Amino acid sequence: MQLKVGIDKVFEIDSKTSIYETLKKNKLFIISPCGGKGTCGKCKVKIIKGEYNCNNYGKLLAAEKENKIVLACQTFVLGDLEIEIPKESVLVVGEQIATSRYKDLTLYLETYGLKPNPIVKRIVVELTHPSISDNISDIERLRSALFELGIDNIHFSHLITTDLSSTIRENNWKVEVSYIERHNNTHIVFLISGTECHKRYGAAVDIGTTTVVVYLVDLDTGHLVDVGSTYNSQMRYGDDVITRIVHATEGGGLEELRSAVRGDIKSIIKSLSEIHNIRVCEVVSTVIAANTTMSQLFWGLDPSSIREAPYIPTLNRYPMWTGAEARLPVSPMSPVFTFPCIGSYVGGDIVSGVLASGMHRRDEIALFMDIGTNAEIAIGNNEWIMSAACSAGPCFEGGGVTCGMRATNGAIESIVIDRKTLEPAIKVIGGGIPIGLCGSALIDAISEMFLSGIIDLKGSFHKEKTSRIREAETGLEYVVYTNEKIGRDIIITSADVENVIRAKAAIYAGVSLILREVGLGIEAIDKVYIAGGFGNYLNMERAIIIGMLPDMPTEKFDFLGNTSIIGAYLCLMSEELMKEAEELSKKMTYLELSATNSYMEEYMSAMFLPHTDISLFPTVQVKLNNALGVEN
Amino acid sequence: MQLKVGIDKVFEIDSKTSIYETLKKNKLFIISPCGGKGTCGKCKVKIIKGEYNCNNYGKLLAAEKENKIVLACQTFVLGDLEIEIPKESVLVVGEQIATSRYKDLTLYLETYGLKPNPIVKRIVVELTHPSISDNISDIERLRSALFELGIDNIHFSHLITTDLSSTIRENNWKVEVSYIERHNNTHIVFLISGTECHKRYGAAVDIGTTTVVVYLVDLDTGHLVDVGSTYNSQMRYGDDVITRIVHATEGGGLEELRSAVRGDIKSIIKSLSEIHNIRVCEVVSTVIAANTTMSQLFWGLDPSSIREAPYIPTLNRYPMWTGAEARLPVSPMSPVFTFPCIGSYVGGDIVSGVLASGMHRRDEIALFMDIGTNAEIAIGNNEWIMSAACSAGPCFEGGGVTCGMRATNGAIESIVIDRKTLEPAIKVIGGGIPIGLCGSALIDAISEMFLSGIIDLKGSFHKEKTSRIREAETGLEYVVYTNEKIGRDIIITSADVENVIRAKAAIYAGVSLILREVGLGIEAIDKVYIAGGFGNYLNMERAIIIGMLPDMPTEKFDFLGNTSIIGAYLCLMSEELMKEAEELSKKMTYLELSATNSYMEEYMSAMFLPHTDISLFPTVQVKLNNALGVEN
Repeated sequence: MQLKVGIDKVFEIDSKTSIYETLKKNKLFIISPCGGKGTCGKCKVKIIKGEYNCNNYGKLLAAEKENKIVLACQTFVLGDLEIEIPKESVLVVGEQIATSRYKDLTLYLETYGLKPNPIVKRIVVELTHPSISDNISDIERLRSALFELGIDNIHFSHLITTDLSSTIRENNWKVEVSYIERHNNTHIVFLISGTECHKRYGAAVDIGTTTVVVYLVDLDTGHLVDVGSTYNSQMRYGDDVITRIVHATEGGGLEELRSAVRGDIKSIIKSLSEIHNIRVCEVVSTVIAANTTMSQLFWGLDPSSIREAPYIPTLNRYPMWTGAEARLPVSPMSPVFTFPCIGSYVGGDIVSGVLASGMHRRDEIALFMDIGTNAEIAIGNNEWIMSAACSAGPCFEGGGVTCGMRATNGAIESIVIDRKTLEPAIKVIGGGIPIGLCGSALIDAISEMFLSGIIDLKGSFHKEKTSRIREAETGLEYVVYTNEKIGRDIIITSADVENVIRAKAAIYAGVSLILREVGLGIEAIDKVYIAGGFGNYLNMERAIIIGMLPDMPTEKFDFLGNTSIIGAYLCLMSEELMKEAEELSKKMTYLELSATNSYMEEYMSAMFLPHTDISLFPTVQVKLNNALGVEN
Repeated sequence: MQLKVGIDKVFEIDSKTSIYETLKKNKLFIISPCGGKGTCGKCKVKIIKGEYNCNNYGKLLAAEKENKIVLACQTFVLGDLEIEIPKESVLVVGEQIATSRYKDLTLYLETYGLKPNPIVKRIVVELTHPSISDNISDIERLRSALFELGIDNIHFSHLITTDLSSTIRENNWKVEVSYIERHNNTHIVFLISGTECHKRYGAAVDIGTTTVVVYLVDLDTGHLVDVGSTYNSQMRYGDDVITRIVHATEGGGLEELRSAVRGDIKSIIKSLSEIHNIRVCEVVSTVIAANTTMSQLFWGLDPSSIREAPYIPTLNRYPMWTGAEARLPVSPMSPVFTFPCIGSYVGGDIVSGVLASGMHRRDEIALFMDIGTNAEIAIGNNEWIMSAACSAGPCFEGGGVTCGMRATNGAIESIVIDRKTLEPAIKVIGGGIPIGLCGSALIDAISEMFLSGIIDLKGSFHKEKTSRIREAETGLEYVVYTNEKIGRDIIITSADVENVIRAKAAIYAGVSLILREVGLGIEAIDKVYIAGGFGNYLNMERAIIIGMLPDMPTEKFDFLGNTSIIGAYLCLMSEELMKEAEELSKKMTYLELSATNSYMEEYMSAMFLPHTDISLFPTVQVKLNNALGVEN
């Protein structure tokens, strides 16, 4: 029998293998924290056509059931079946999220002049056998043997102590001890034999508001074993940070949000571990990079005070809590490092990004911008760094835009509009049929539409220009792509354009204001690092055309992709960089933009393409003149 | 309707109140860790006569059900009912277990020149309100406020952090912080408002092999709030330490043993808290005094290596783990102090006992003996202390003796046999109908039977002496008490006498050997402290007559009762004494008696009443001569 998935995939399936298992066999992974037991209710698929048998609807809502949503792990085919996988169920494996600088991550360590040195150390300890005349306790014996090796002030947690005697004996008094040293204390992570759990892996986790990315890393070599990513399941409770904070304050909401994102991470780590034959005990270190609210929700901490003035998080610098406390499928006493946050709206993901950019180590003044579900900026060098958050919203990550999507397979990533025919030429990630627009395509589209006169400096459509502009109930829209197979066109609406202009204005206003705050002009900036989930690349020139980025020579720009996960990788691989991240966070100051009156002024001025004051964008002026046939 | 309990109690009962609730209302407490939900299967009672309705047999075995055992919390009467409460189900409340020295425990602290100073400190912290210009995180704010008050290096556990923000805000930025300082680190136990959880209590716990005792203490005043005790539920898996260790190695056995004793302690703390309106969050400190195996079982640590040469425990010095890790109904992050152990057979209960005796603070050489389910001895002064364990068995605590029982209400505690009529006169704890013999009565009985010629120096019965000696299937036995109401007589059998002789021989041999090891004679001993569950007192003269104690002037003896719980109380009330206990444990050395050949020799010599070498017992010789009419 055949299982047709979406518009272009067909797999063989038999009546005894669940849809979940069949998809997994074909390397199509679905979020399933419970591992296919039917209890977590997350491996949703929608039946399009065909006969099937769903044993158990688990936690699905009645409305979902009516809508022919089933749990993939509980559903078996009775004949050929056609299904659709909702985007939030998909777990993408093996696809790096825009790490443009180096393909081999170990090169990042090398640029810092560092070798792999993860915080979890491992040492082989040979103990003398006890006798009647040498009958100290097992812990005392281990403690003194470790002392001989220079390891002191050891704290034995209850969990570690539980298995200690049997592990020592089963391994004939020779064990490998994994441990970390923090604040002059040594914490045992675990004891093992030389044959079990021999390898060491770590998980670098980037919890974005929209996307969760996990890098599974070999801690000995620094090599990337695999990458998994998925939508942050918290999305069902709201697209942005604010609605999620509101949800957290409702009965049980906090726990729902916590277990949603934990389920995503768990599901990714479990899937990757399964693919690569890695045991839970072998994942001995985790690093979390996330914004302030995502960090608190991950740890189950009520974020409500972040939302209201004076915007106070519970904590910025996280203690090193454990894998068990994080409820992740990793070694239970292993350390979980959470990137320190700077303030309520500049979080650990930005500290991680700055670390990845390396700007904190150099003399030159750099501007760092992370454009994800929101936009954060940091400016400075090895002496000072100031940071701020702009309420840009999620449109560059595909949120709040009619056909927006993440930069994964099927997303249009670039658009060129022919100046004469006004017909678009597109490029699709993965090369197949396009299903939406990612951030870079959106910037391309707006800048091209602007230069070709399809929209004006206010973002209004000029309907007369091309038949691709059509009138819908919601207003005018531009058709980028049309395909009967998909059943819906890929369009950009007036609202989408307004959305992008608002977002880019927020970003530009933030940059202007922070520059004013530190008393520097654009010319003082030596380098601009751009991070974010736009896609595999960002066309800087076009981002300047729409007025998102200041008008600077494009060679000063450097697109770094997802820096949050790179910073997490770096801390996973290097205790030195972990400390550096902590020091960096102490150095970074936070500018609350909403506290300054000038922000709204700057923002309003930036609500045009590219700006009310075109003199700020001389190169765009030239391009416009060229487009209009005016001499420069 | 009426509920008759045992031989002498009758309560009113209605058909809608369970037996469990009815008993509780009448201040008769039954072990029930689940609090009467029918899930723990521990509140067993036996139906003697009458109609009833048992809703749910829960975890009861088929054999128990056939034997008319029901769960009291699930059983309702249909008419008058007669039941019996098995001794292991009874939770004794309000009865101090032989704390003979002071009725008011605070006097113990005074003798040490100390004031109440529990390890958990509490401090009121007023925080400045945050503002846009002072927007550090809550933890940072609390940390710096505590720093101002001289409290530094604070570790915030994940659990404490979880509620931190809401607690601070609900209490308008003024909170009480409970904390402990250990090894230069400060651990927050919890934060509270000034109105909630205002009082502070602690639990001192003595886990004996046979008995579990809990003192609930007011930490501010040091006053005893209440006492609860019960049989150690591990008894169902074996009477002694060795059979329990064997059970622990069988599948699931370790967890069974752990949850059995934890259930007992939980049940006592919950019952006492309920009686006195104390909230879980108000119990902020726990001290555990237990022998080495009981300590390991309490913490769920496999004790198997304790049993086999070279007798190695997992650990002797316990880290300060938490209430949550101990799984007790106390404040989850509150410290649980476990008395350090000395070796496999000299545990924290002995360190606690030595601490309670104060011998480690004085110049004079003292001998400390704790006679519980086993017997341990310690000898020394403020410079040195040597300890050892004797395999005495549980007979002085009521174990392995036909009519033996703990020293609680109904136990005969003393016996005098008329030299002429050979009729016994008895004294019963609580004054009612006697139901068994506690340790002190057993010593009384044997010594009186010996002096009056009912038994000879080998312990053999002389049947011709009195009609109270009768022949049973198992051999000769002496009838102490007979009462038709009870349905069985209180007797001492030949096997019981042998048992006592073996036990006292083991103790005497231990004392002899340890004296030889330290090169001292009996005359060098200035003081003998006796601890144990004999009853409210121990007649030293009679213990000398049977050869259990060395023949020394009785004024040198001091009966201290349950010193293990007193030491636990002291550490609960004083951080100084907690440290002193740790120092003391480092000073105490351990003599493995089984490692010396002479032990068996000494033991065999002591297998007579009082000893093969009567010259060691001159005062007993005089008494024997008097009894026989021989001139001294």
